[in-house]
This record gives sequence, structure tokens and C-alpha cells, in this order.
Amino acid sequence: MLTRVRSAVAHLVSSGGAPPPRPKSPDLPSATAAPPAAAPEAPKSPPARPGSGSRAPAKTAEARASFSRPTFLQLSPGGLRRADDHAGRAVQSPPDTGRRLPWSTGYAEVINAGKSRHNEDQACCEVVYVEGRRSISGAPRESSRGQGLCFYYWGLFDGHAGGGAAEMACRLLHRHVQEQLKDLVDILQDPSPPPLCLPSTPGTPGFSDRSHLVGPQPCWSLQKEVSHESLVIGAIENAFQLMGEEGTVTLSVVWPGQDEQMARERRGHQVEGGCCALVVVYLLGKVYVANAGDSRAIIVRNGEIIPMSREFTPETERQRLQLLGFLKPELLGSEFTHLEFPRRIQPKELGQRMLYRDQNMTGWAYKKIELEDLRFPLVSGEGKKARVMATIGVTRGLGDHNLKVCSSTLPIKPFLSCFPEVQVYDLTQYEHCPDDVLVLGTDGLWDVTNDCEVAATVDRVLSAYEPNDPSRYTALAQALVLGARGTPRDRGWHLPNNKLGSGDDISVFVIPLGGPGSYS
Amino acid sequence: MLTRVRSAVAHLVSSGGAPPPRPKSPDLPSATAAPPAAAPEAPKSPPARPGSGSRAPAKTAEARASFSRPTFLQLSPGGLRRADDHAGRAVQSPPDTGRRLPWSTGYAEVINAGKSRHNEDQACCEVVYVEGRRSISGAPRESSRGQGLCFYYWGLFDGHAGGGAAEMACRLLHRHVQEQLKDLVDILQDPSPPPLCLPSTPGTPGFSDRSHLVGPQPCWSLQKEVSHESLVIGAIENAFQLMGEEGTVTLSVVWPGQDEQMARERRGHQVEGGCCALVVVYLLGKVYVANAGDSRAIIVRNGEIIPMSREFTPETERQRLQLLGFLKPELLGSEFTHLEFPRRIQPKELGQRMLYRDQNMTGWAYKKIELEDLRFPLVSGEGKKARVMATIGVTRGLGDHNLKVCSSTLPIKPFLSCFPEVQVYDLTQYEHCPDDVLVLGTDGLWDVTNDCEVAATVDRVLSAYEPNDPSRYTALAQALVLGARGTPRDRGWHLPNNKLGSGDDISVFVIPLGGPGSYS
Repeated sequence: MLTRVRSAVAHLVSSGGAPPPRPKSPDLPSATAAPPAAAPEAPKSPPARPGSGSRAPAKTAEARASFSRPTFLQLSPGGLRRADDHAGRAVQSPPDTGRRLPWSTGYAEVINAGKSRHNEDQACCEVVYVEGRRSISGAPRESSRGQGLCFYYWGLFDGHAGGGAAEMACRLLHRHVQEQLKDLVDILQDPSPPPLCLPSTPGTPGFSDRSHLVGPQPCWSLQKEVSHESLVIGAIENAFQLMGEEGTVTLSVVWPGQDEQMARERRGHQVEGGCCALVVVYLLGKVYVANAGDSRAIIVRNGEIIPMSREFTPETERQRLQLLGFLKPELLGSEFTHLEFPRRIQPKELGQRMLYRDQNMTGWAYKKIELEDLRFPLVSGEGKKARVMATIGVTRGLGDHNLKVCSSTLPIKPFLSCFPEVQVYDLTQYEHCPDDVLVLGTDGLWDVTNDCEVAATVDRVLSAYEPNDPSRYTALAQALVLGARGTPRDRGWHLPNNKLGSGDDISVFVIPLGGPGSYS
Repeated sequence: MLTRVRSAVAHLVSSGGAPPPRPKSPDLPSATAAPPAAAPEAPKSPPARPGSGSRAPAKTAEARASFSRPTFLQLSPGGLRRADDHAGRAVQSPPDTGRRLPWSTGYAEVINAGKSRHNEDQACCEVVYVEGRRSISGAPRESSRGQGLCFYYWGLFDGHAGGGAAEMACRLLHRHVQEQLKDLVDILQDPSPPPLCLPSTPGTPGFSDRSHLVGPQPCWSLQKEVSHESLVIGAIENAFQLMGEEGTVTLSVVWPGQDEQMARERRGHQVEGGCCALVVVYLLGKVYVANAGDSRAIIVRNGEIIPMSREFTPETERQRLQLLGFLKPELLGSEFTHLEFPRRIQPKELGQRMLYRDQNMTGWAYKKIELEDLRFPLVSGEGKKARVMATIGVTRGLGDHNLKVCSSTLPIKPFLSCFPEVQVYDLTQYEHCPDDVLVLGTDGLWDVTNDCEVAATVDRVLSAYEPNDPSRYTALAQALVLGARGTPRDRGWHLPNNKLGSGDDISVFVIPLGGPGSYS
């Protein structure tokens, strides 16, 4: 991802390559907890209990101070050093022994070819139990169903200009999702439409008594019916927003009880850099894919490709960015114009007529060049070289609070959105076979391959394994990373503008959607 | 379309049902002109010369003072009265005798069932010749090719709150397109990529000398390549914008030469109401479909449906509207909130928690109701009852300059966009048969039927006619209007909430895409 931020800018937003020290004590309480055995919507067998994606083993204190890799990789100190080796670029995966990731999820990653000091991608895979909101007395609220909810969670965080934001998102975003879902535990398990209005305080007596809910009223026009699915989408969107607001000075959310201490310790703690976030939540039969950035998710089902995300870049979000610059010109300073031009205008061209696009246009037209058109365009460049304010190549994600235009104090953050686009896939609508998978990859993968090639690799690798062999999904993730990295023989990643392999960090999840070995 | 604007508001924006008197002299010069016989890109035979869509026959002075119908209908005074009869609702089409519309285009329309005093739809079908920009000396510019360009043009304008905007758009929008294309005559006929920069004054000596054009320069980054197609899209977009800026006080564009007088006469002339605009431009082998509003275009090709437009309504544009309200809260006055709620909030619900969506969300979440949430939502209602500021049910189009919120001085225009979405269909990429058609319809058609039913009618009606019978396309347009209107026997349109037929104005173009009889 580092390639998506001009290196000239990186020093402005980071004191160096090393992320700041992690808070030492108390450690973040695990969001992971076994769901109640009888939870009606919980998976069929007790979920695995993988480590949090970001808690490094305590004994690797030295490595921990410099960088961390997902705990589920179970890296030894030597393994951690190999994972940090830009020359070898060994592909890392969870060990074949020991407890597997939930659903027998496959994972593989590789560090970049020296573009940043460490691998700035992070990954997280969790099973999270959501208990309904507690009452004021502190006792667990009496739920109409008496059961909490359990969701499965996968996250890929592609960091840039430092690893801090990706690490923090890896550690906290699923907690925000959990927090947002707490009010919905009863509502999501009740087949009747969600109430439009609830009493003031969650957990007050009568909260679970639906007769207290404010019912339909014949005013203004018919009320809208809101689906359960759209409540989960709203919860995920708000989790991203709260995560997006965090990171520089204080934590806006203090977890009830034991987390306050940690929150206090983090106050004033500078989070460096930013990250794209691609998150999958499986809840009550549906898969929610939330994307903020340029990572990508696709489902490969019976050989067919189903896109589950769109990329958010200066090109795909040009009109949103231009509109913001047009409506809030003060955000552009005196350096930028919201108009787009196909190349930089020279002062000597003043008075001539140049092609341009404004925030309303998808086509191009000529305009007479005026003095303020000599400013730099808010959106410039094409493809992987497209930039906002000549600086950043991705327009959604978390962090980047201190990102400034090079040689300027102009902040870029107002143009970046932390909101994901959420796509929903109903797992119950189709009988999935063991070869049907959801593939998540950071842009290091997708920059050098495409959906069809990935689908071909899915077919090739999975067909070489028994359908009930749970290691096949990690083998597939490894094959995808290896194919995108290039091979040591051609040393593709060392070449500038190399077509053979990616020089970027690459991280891949392969989530099986059905068949033996899944849902474990 | 009148149903899309609350009738309570209509009186605010119109002095009554009758449109203001039309300018009498000089009449608008026709944009229609035969293209040069040898124009290489011009249609195979000289284009027909239909009347302008809005110039009523001179002899029907009385009818002209009250309303007008497209001239190509060639209505007699008696026919004009029948076309204005809400009870009979006779379907109107061009006569079977005389010169046909270009391409043997079919057309039919019907007035509404009494919702407005007159039919507020307008239609236009033109062949427009574009001469390159004249030089300063006034002599025709010497073109590198020596040829102008010819485009075919169809427009449907669905008026609301008065017929003035639809009439003006019908009369002028293709002129704006013509004007925008003048600079592009040479460029579009040159197969090399369009120049990014042109000398200052069109028509100055050397303008057509491409060696004077500013070439690529190795600065900033590689320059973008801009396609010919995107120049035509830009021209159409800017034509809509210029048209959208017109209408209330002055005309911003004064046609060169003879039109200045007309422009002066129109100064200070109030245009009533607004209109949706659905426009088709055929130029150099490609069909450009530009839509601003809730009319719809589909291609039916070999039975397959190809959508050529999207509708722009408070529901489809919710996030654009909310973002504008969020960034410019002064546009909301003290009456509105940019948040969306699923129903109106009651003052007694203050402090409770209500479902809401902000400009970033597609899902819903609960929020505590605060005092300012009691304001009316900027976007409210669902489906055909969705409204911006409780007033208007369509979010793009022309006119509406004086539209105010009921019982308020708050203008709604800032939330309305005049920009179309332009979709392109390359006519040369497919061998079309005589049954392949592009169907344009105002929402009166689509409110009571759908794409599949229209495709079935296309198949049923066209198969009943010989493929080379040019009257089959008007027969199809009539069948579509009749099917949507309901029949006199069931009197469907008279029933409130009638499911059987539309009570709205309905206008339909059927444009054949190939085969004998086309391109005439």
C-alpha cells in the first residue's frame, strides 16, 4: 500500500519507520468468547478460539517493539524475523498443526520488496459473542430470548505511511461492531419487523417489553419498513465511523468496565499512518462484506465470479471529491482547484482552452484557462498513479488524521471517508460445495492479477486436494500469494515496473462457504 | 408528472394554469437544416425536416395561447381540442400521411385524467446540422475536412407545476447541444485523439492547423487520453447545464446573429414550472441517451432488454441530497434536517431512540431523539410518494427556479440537479433487425408497466406488421400508451388509486435501431 502514498509525504505523518510502542498493560481483553451452547443462531459446533489478530506473543518483546504479525500465524522469534525479510519474501501461513482458523479459513501473506520497513498489512480473524446491553443495575439484561448473538469476523487492513492505523483497526474494529450490535441482540432474533422507535435508555425496565415500543402512527405518510439486514449494515457502518474517529488523541468509546484503564493509557497516543479496511461479518445466515479502500473481495462459486466489493480510489470517487472541493473551497487552500484537467497546465497556456471536468461531468469539454486553473487539480493522474491532492491514492479507510499535503499544512483527511460500502450475501440461498470460497485480498494481490485468474487458481488448487482436507484453503491462499509475488527464480519483485510480480505487501484470506470442514 | 409535485405548492410557482404568452416575433429560427449532400458522416438520405416540436401552427392562435402540442402531430384546431380533452383521453400520433419522423420513429401521447389543466409533457424530434465555429471575419471557418456534422435528436420533456419549462426545453435544448458541438466539428471527424489544449479563440487563423495545438508535455505525470465519445458526453452535459441556467430572468446564451432579438424579448420572461428531460442524440454511429429525471429509456434487442437510463428521485439520490444538506445546513433553513427517519417524529418522543440514516449510511441505526430531529426530514416518503422537502418527487431536470417549500420562502432548486446521466450505445457493434427498438417513455408509462411488459408489447405489435412497414413503430407507440392509459371501457384512469391505468400524461417515442425503413 505504501506505493499509494507519495513517499515524500510519509515523513510528514510519521516519525520514522517504526510504529510507536504498544501499550503494555493491561492487555486488551479478548473479544473472543464461546457462545452459549444452545444459542439458536450460533454455529453448529463451538467456535475455535484463535488469538486476536494483533496480539504478538509476549516473549518476543524485541520484535514486538518493532513490528507485529497476526498472532494466528504463531510465529517464533526466528519466524518473525523471516517474515520481516524483504529479500527472502517467504510466504507466511498459520501452521498446519494446532487449532485451525474458524471455518478452516486459509490465510497467507508476504512482506513487500523493501518499499516500507515492515509489512504494513494486518489481518484479524475472530469469533465474537455479543451479549445484550446490560441493565442499569449491572446485571445482565433479561432478554426476551435469553440468548446473545455470535458473529464470525475476518478483517484485512492494508496500512500506508506507517503501521499504526492498521494495527489499531485490527485490534479494535470488531469490538466496535460488537458494541454496535449490543442493542440489536433481541431485535435481530425476533422475526417481526424492527421497531422504529425504542424507549430512551437501553436496559431500563421494560426495554424488552415490546408493548412499550412506539408503534406506527398515521402521520406525514406511511412509515418505512426497515429490515433486519439493514440494521446490521448500519451497525457495521457506525463501527467503521467510530473507528475512523479514533486514533490520534483520545478514544471516543470506553469499553465498559475493565477497558477504561487501557483507554486512559492510549490517550495522547499518536497513531501513525492510515489503512484500508476490508471486513467480513457472518451473522444469522448472511455474509456482510464491508470495504473502505482498494482491497477486494470476490466469491468464486461453482467457477462463477461474484464481486463482493468495489474499490474506492481517486478515480472511482472523483465526483464525490470534486463536489466536496466545490462546496467547501476552503478545504482546497490556495494550492488546489476542484476542476480536473488531463494534465498539468503551464502558466504560458493562460488564455488558451483546455479540456476539463467538473464535479457534475463524466464527459470532457474545453474551457478557457484562467489564473486559478493553474492550481494543482484536487484529483490527478490515472490508475495506480491517481492521487488526491498529489498525495494519496486511496480515498476511503481509517486513520490518516495527520496526513498533510507535501510542503503544506493543508489536511487531506476531510476528503477521505471512513465509511465502507457493505454488500450482503445470503449463505442460505444456495447449497454451497467445498470448492465455493470467498477470497479477500489487499491490492498487492489485485494489482498483478484479476478475478478470472484467481478463479482459475481456486479451481486448480482445490481440485488437487481432497474436499474434506481442511488444509486446502491455506494451500490456496499460499498459491495466490506466491502467484502474485513472483518467484525467487525470476526475482520479479526486485524489478522496477516489474510485470511479473508485486513488490507490495500481499495478504489473502480464503473463506470456504460450505462443505465438510467448514463452519468448524 | 404533476403527481410528483405537491399540488399545494403549485400555486406558489405559477400564476395559474395558463402558460405565459409565447414570444411572437421573430420566431425562433429553426435549428433544422439539411446537411451537405456529401457529408461523410451524414445519414444516407437527406434528413426529413419535421417542424420544431413546440411551434404550434400559426393559424391556431387561440389554442396556442393556452397550450401547445408537438408540431409533428400536425393537429388541426379540432384535433388540438381533442388532444386537450381529459375525458376522452384520445391517443395522439403523427398522421399516417405526409412526411414521417426521421428513422420512421413512432410517437404517441395522451393527456392526463384531469390532474393538470393541459398536457405538460412535450416532445421534440429534430435533425440538426452543426457547422464548425465561424471565424472572426464572419466567413465560415475553413475546416480541415470542410464538412459539418449532423446529429439526430429526440427529446421527451415531462413538465410539472406548469408547462413553461418543458416548452422551453423542447424549443431550445437541441440548440444548446448544437452550440456545444460547434467547437468539436473537426475534432470529432479526426481519428487521432482529441487535443488536450486549443488556442484561445475558436476561429482565429490557425485554429484548424493542428500543428498549432499544444501537444503533450512531460510534466506532473502522464497525460490522460480523452476519447471522442467523452467529448460528446461533455457537450450534452454542458448543454443541459446551460439550459438549466436559463429560464427565469435572462438567457445566458445569445445565439449568434439573428437570435439576439429573441433573447432580448425573453429577458424578464418568467418560465413556469420544471420538467424532466430524456434526450437521445445519434452522432457518428453512436446513440447517446441523456436522462435528468424519472423518464426511462430501454433498448429491446432481439427480445433482450438493455436499460439505457436510471431514474433520479429522492430515493435514488438520497445520499447526494443529504450530503448537500449536511455540508450546507443553511439550505435547510430551520424547518428541515438532513437526517432521514422512517416516519415523522412526535414531540412527545423526545429522548427516545429512533431509527435514522445520515448521508453516509445505507443501513439504519438508532439514535436518541434530540430537539432538531423534530424538524421535517429533507428526504421523506417512499416510492412515488418520496419527496424532497415534502414538495417534489423528482431530483433532476430543468426549470423549477422559483420552486419554494409550501408556506415558506425556502428554495428547493439548490437540491435539484440539471445534469443528466449519459449512457452510450454503439450502433455499429451489432447488426440490428427491424424489430430492435429504443423506447423512451415519461413516467406515466413506467408507473403502470415495466420493462418486460414493454418488451412483450414490442414483440406482439411489431410481429403483426410487415418488417418494412414504416407505420409499425407508431402503432407500437400507440399500443404502449393505450396499454398504460387503460381503456375507456374500464375507465381505469378515473378511479382513485386505480391499478388499471395511469392518470398521468404519457408520451412515448419508439426509435427503430435498424432494418428497412430506418435511417430515413
